[in-house]
Amino acid sequence: MAEATQDGRYTVGVDLGGTNIAVAVVDDVYTVMAGQKVPTDPRDGAEAVADRIAEAVGEVVGQAGVRADSIRGVGVGAPGPLDPESGVVSFAPNLNWHNVPLKSMLESRLSVPTFVENDVNVGTLGELRLGAGKGAKQLIGVFVGTGIGGGMVLDGELYRGANFSAGEVGHMIVKTGGPRCGCGNRGCWEAVASRQAIVRRLVRAFRRGARGPLYKMTKGAPSKIRSRALSRAFLDGDPLVIREMKREAKYLGMGVANLINLFSPQMVILGGGVVEAMGDWLIKRVRRSTRRYALAHALEGVDIVASALGDDAGILGCAVLANGRLSQMAES
Amino acid sequence: MAEATQDGRYTVGVDLGGTNIAVAVVDDVYTVMAGQKVPTDPRDGAEAVADRIAEAVGEVVGQAGVRADSIRGVGVGAPGPLDPESGVVSFAPNLNWHNVPLKSMLESRLSVPTFVENDVNVGTLGELRLGAGKGAKQLIGVFVGTGIGGGMVLDGELYRGANFSAGEVGHMIVKTGGPRCGCGNRGCWEAVASRQAIVRRLVRAFRRGARGPLYKMTKGAPSKIRSRALSRAFLDGDPLVIREMKREAKYLGMGVANLINLFSPQMVILGGGVVEAMGDWLIKRVRRSTRRYALAHALEGVDIVASALGDDAGILGCAVLANGRLSQMAES
Repeated sequence: MAEATQDGRYTVGVDLGGTNIAVAVVDDVYTVMAGQKVPTDPRDGAEAVADRIAEAVGEVVGQAGVRADSIRGVGVGAPGPLDPESGVVSFAPNLNWHNVPLKSMLESRLSVPTFVENDVNVGTLGELRLGAGKGAKQLIGVFVGTGIGGGMVLDGELYRGANFSAGEVGHMIVKTGGPRCGCGNRGCWEAVASRQAIVRRLVRAFRRGARGPLYKMTKGAPSKIRSRALSRAFLDGDPLVIREMKREAKYLGMGVANLINLFSPQMVILGGGVVEAMGDWLIKRVRRSTRRYALAHALEGVDIVASALGDDAGILGCAVLANGRLSQMAES
Repeated sequence: MAEATQDGRYTVGVDLGGTNIAVAVVDDVYTVMAGQKVPTDPRDGAEAVADRIAEAVGEVVGQAGVRADSIRGVGVGAPGPLDPESGVVSFAPNLNWHNVPLKSMLESRLSVPTFVENDVNVGTLGELRLGAGKGAKQLIGVFVGTGIGGGMVLDGELYRGANFSAGEVGHMIVKTGGPRCGCGNRGCWEAVASRQAIVRRLVRAFRRGARGPLYKMTKGAPSKIRSRALSRAFLDGDPLVIREMKREAKYLGMGVANLINLFSPQMVILGGGVVEAMGDWLIKRVRRSTRRYALAHALEGVDIVASALGDDAGILGCAVLANGRLSQMAES
């Protein structure tokens, strides 16, 4: 942690997830001064979640040793489709939220300008300004965890589209008639290539009697098959996990190829739990699979790289978001 | 045909296809003054094709009754990936072209500023400025013929991407392990939803002994199963063709849903031979299928409409292209 200087100007990043809320104070050169995680407990309702965010912000500002009035803004990465201008979260299934005016709820509690953006867009913004995507004009961030989220940068700026919903890469159908997805369709990219998809295939194999290091570690309980367990079993040479990860690389590469054919980006950044845990091995195989499925002229010179900020992409992206929006406000 | 006024300023549009070259003189309010089609005969080589284009331009300028020096620019829609700045066509399989400097080849023959753009982009540009997409900020043009081509407009301008190859929608994989595509992959959108895909399925049915109005019309010869034959057999109530067209609508809607999830456009314009021939019936079914496959929040308010310019989208888009580039040059 860097030492706090009272004349510095700080932002607070809030990464709001279905399970935890990560909050951090970030200085003007994007050093994290203090941070903490608190449980989201969405069942208490949106007002209670906003209270918890406000309380956590107060605590980390105290921990960072900065004056409350040196916080110039708060950036929030929130799940689900939302309107980044009004700061209303239209729909967030894992919070059970419908049309929650998060921006105004937090501004009334914090008395600081607050900016809300889709969590995956925020992660992509972090990578664009501070991580693997520095200086890129066209990039796509793909985050592989429970689902698959995507963020798009075109002409150096986040691209959100007409309904602020651009980048829903997880629900691109890649396998007509394939496995059922949470959205109700079959064969979405996240129904074949998210961690949930991997877990579903592994559990099916366990039911058929397959055994090995992963089974020993987890007793086959889906909730225990987390990204880290997968990478540990992989390193232990678990043949079942190795086979699954080869399949994963194939499907990830196929989806990345689709994105390259459609957008012609300079760069694709891969992040999220599964990618973090599997590291270089997975990235290399995804590159190979992408080469197989993308058009040669679209793929030329395109970098496919791992997220550089890892878990911090969200928090740092929130700080970038807040600073960017504050500058826009100052200009206009 | 409108009457030529010598003080008007004209552009020439050149729609370069694998079979024919369509050339037209267009006035400053986008009225076609004169036009003609000549065979491409690509086997004679690129220089011969450029000669033919130049000759056809001379002829239509004469037919239009305008002075050669009143032509302010030429816009060319060419197949394959190309660099719209240098005007070099990198690769056009149906012309057997590799790195052909079409812009400079035509400028040396015509002595008029010439601008080259991908043919599908040109069609999309035509629809954007003069057709179904007037005033749209984000739109996607999807042209369904032998293959499936796409053009993307973001923030009111053509979006080309880092390798000028954005919008290769036909090679988006939607059916892993599905039918083989011309590109070598399996399950590309155009391998399940282009006219070639429809014809392949119909020919297979004929081989299994299926008969009906389409078979009577075509004797099952693939080369005779053109879009117009399909629509005639459809109107005759050919059960085989009706079944195929329902399948077509399903697959088109699925791909359109993918594009809506990814780009969040305001509008999707459907054009090309198959769409022109099948008209409203197909558009309505594609809408229904898109609703089934797209995320509700991404689909909200999105118009899915037929091309308004039809066959003229290319020629008029070329004129729009030439005028736009000339204005840019004048400004800089």
